[in-house]
Amino acid sequence: MSIPWADRYSVGGREMKGSSLRAIFSQSRKPGMISLAGGTPAPEVFPVEEIAAASEHALTHHTIDALQYGPTEGYTPLKEYLVTRMARYGMPCTPNQIHITAGSQQGSDLVGRLFIDPGSVVAIEDPTYASVLTSFAPYQPKYVPLPMDENGVRIDALEQLLKSGVRPAFFYTVSSFQNPTGVSISIERRRQLVEMAARYAMPIVEDDPYGELVFEGEVMPPIAAIDAQMHGSVQHVIYMSTFSKLLSPGLRVAWIVAPQEVVDKLILARQGMDLHTTGLSQVIAHELCADGFVDRHIPRIRETYRARRDAMLEALAQYMPSGIHWNKPRGGMFVWMTLPPEMDSTKLVAAAIQKNVVFMPGIGFYANGGPLNTARLSFANPTPDAIRNGVQRLAETIREYHA
Amino acid sequence: MSIPWADRYSVGGREMKGSSLRAIFSQSRKPGMISLAGGTPAPEVFPVEEIAAASEHALTHHTIDALQYGPTEGYTPLKEYLVTRMARYGMPCTPNQIHITAGSQQGSDLVGRLFIDPGSVVAIEDPTYASVLTSFAPYQPKYVPLPMDENGVRIDALEQLLKSGVRPAFFYTVSSFQNPTGVSISIERRRQLVEMAARYAMPIVEDDPYGELVFEGEVMPPIAAIDAQMHGSVQHVIYMSTFSKLLSPGLRVAWIVAPQEVVDKLILARQGMDLHTTGLSQVIAHELCADGFVDRHIPRIRETYRARRDAMLEALAQYMPSGIHWNKPRGGMFVWMTLPPEMDSTKLVAAAIQKNVVFMPGIGFYANGGPLNTARLSFANPTPDAIRNGVQRLAETIREYHA
Repeated sequence: MSIPWADRYSVGGREMKGSSLRAIFSQSRKPGMISLAGGTPAPEVFPVEEIAAASEHALTHHTIDALQYGPTEGYTPLKEYLVTRMARYGMPCTPNQIHITAGSQQGSDLVGRLFIDPGSVVAIEDPTYASVLTSFAPYQPKYVPLPMDENGVRIDALEQLLKSGVRPAFFYTVSSFQNPTGVSISIERRRQLVEMAARYAMPIVEDDPYGELVFEGEVMPPIAAIDAQMHGSVQHVIYMSTFSKLLSPGLRVAWIVAPQEVVDKLILARQGMDLHTTGLSQVIAHELCADGFVDRHIPRIRETYRARRDAMLEALAQYMPSGIHWNKPRGGMFVWMTLPPEMDSTKLVAAAIQKNVVFMPGIGFYANGGPLNTARLSFANPTPDAIRNGVQRLAETIREYHA
Repeated sequence: MSIPWADRYSVGGREMKGSSLRAIFSQSRKPGMISLAGGTPAPEVFPVEEIAAASEHALTHHTIDALQYGPTEGYTPLKEYLVTRMARYGMPCTPNQIHITAGSQQGSDLVGRLFIDPGSVVAIEDPTYASVLTSFAPYQPKYVPLPMDENGVRIDALEQLLKSGVRPAFFYTVSSFQNPTGVSISIERRRQLVEMAARYAMPIVEDDPYGELVFEGEVMPPIAAIDAQMHGSVQHVIYMSTFSKLLSPGLRVAWIVAPQEVVDKLILARQGMDLHTTGLSQVIAHELCADGFVDRHIPRIRETYRARRDAMLEALAQYMPSGIHWNKPRGGMFVWMTLPPEMDSTKLVAAAIQKNVVFMPGIGFYANGGPLNTARLSFANPTPDAIRNGVQRLAETIREYHA
């Protein structure tokens, strides 16, 4: 039954549409389905006992911080801890430069609210993180997608845009092990991005949920750290990271590091949104950070995801027919696959679901549309055995695609 | 140091200003200060041990629900419980009509996003809940404040507005024990509001955080329940309530009941905002509801607040000079005070802070401005002794106001 006052929706409310990716997520919950679709962490690495102990400690010793209304900007000890954590990346900052959000999705919403007017140009990677497009949509930006290669976003394309006189509200990047492609921006390009941000007075929004999930080599310095080293403090970057991949996404705790002037605005914006992040979650996160647990836990997470990536790369090599290409990410959660040009991955996924395997067609990650022959495969959530079975089923689906 | 790209703020971001009420809240945290300012619950009624036990149970038996990404609309068992709870109010609904929010402030933000365009008329009570104005501000409504009396909003004023042809996006009300006045809308007027909503196809946004905090008589049926009884289901009301006053605000769990079509839109809007409410908090809330604890706990909350209200009313009668008036709320958290017309409560509060007592000047609760001689006194957070001392200090400040 339709409501008699449906004409009262705002323009944004009327236009709000479901994402096609979401429909695929709902398929992924069916029994027997192997999901290579979601960006959902491995539940095997949730530190359940440690979270339970931290919760008990929080409720016994930090009752008011856990249960009463709290400061909008976040739990002070957690902000202070994050200052020391950011210092390790070479990113000196003060607690006043940190804002705790209820997940990084809220960080994206806050950035949209503070910086996007209808028609504002937002420069993004092509492809980009699909859910950030959902966050920005109500603010009605105009996207300029920038091409990428194996070293991340193409700096020449960004420079060309800025030289042409366009002044983007910001450049948004998932700098390390990008969602969806798994690609990281090289150190050289990170430096160039900071230089360009300074030269053209253009902020960079750096979304960094996967930086710690490195399987080979060291954690790369965030763009924000290079900014801080070049300019004495974070001046051109709004940096976002999260505990969703290090502890648990259900706790909904993430953080933003930015120039204090921006953080002051974030607080004001946040007061109208939800007042503050769950107190209990923040105290739990702080307990697990302050006693060093998170640092001891990260190697286990890396090991788990590395084994799953290896299982996926081996299975791809073993089962995929010729003409199918994929990259070999050195961290994160995603492999990016390129099918022959005549293959449509939105049709392929429908056939794959019949074989009880599901993945993400690439088209949803292109802000202004793009090729139909790409796909994102996630190795984070399924076990190595499930990954092998899933890739085998997917390869069969591909072989049968033209049949 | 100012950022070099301050020109990149959106119009909303540039205009975002701190609330004068917030500055007063920060005063209220000073040592020795007695705060009659905040709407902060009594920590003495936080069921700390029960929350700790529920948290342990949640993490042991509902690990994935507590820690993994979860459904945007909320934890299914909690939605199902709320269906039974709403049925008790005479408000039949289905789980598909319920959306769990990270506090009611987020409910207000969602409503603003779905229903307010720049310049949309929003009909509200005069005075109204100040923080809802913060939530709606980014959507730039035009307010039509409606006068109130001891039975709540004046129906004749709303009818006059609607008859004039104005079509508000919605009418927003805190229907029971209103923040800031403590006034409840009478049953008769609730019926009239539903009739008017149906006749003029105008939604009502009913914010009901205090309805259960009744000290005398029964819990009043929400406007949404009367709507459901008159029309077979909730058709004209978007109903919001919260666990912030029943369990703990730090858990950040609240809910919305609305026609399913609206709830479907809420889910889409929410996906861009923060994905979902903290899983652990939702499972804790469900544990404490499902075993009947919340119902056993509510009488203790009522008893605590009733004693504090009584302490405040007795102290007001004992200490206040003549010419000062206040109402006698039958529930909730607030007493509304009217000073002599020549007194400015924003000046009074500055003098009161010198005497280590703080309250809320009334002016911040009037959307389009209002009288300067009103004040909101909260009895929820301080102990009865602190309330008596606070009222005594405030009475002294008033006596000295003209000195």
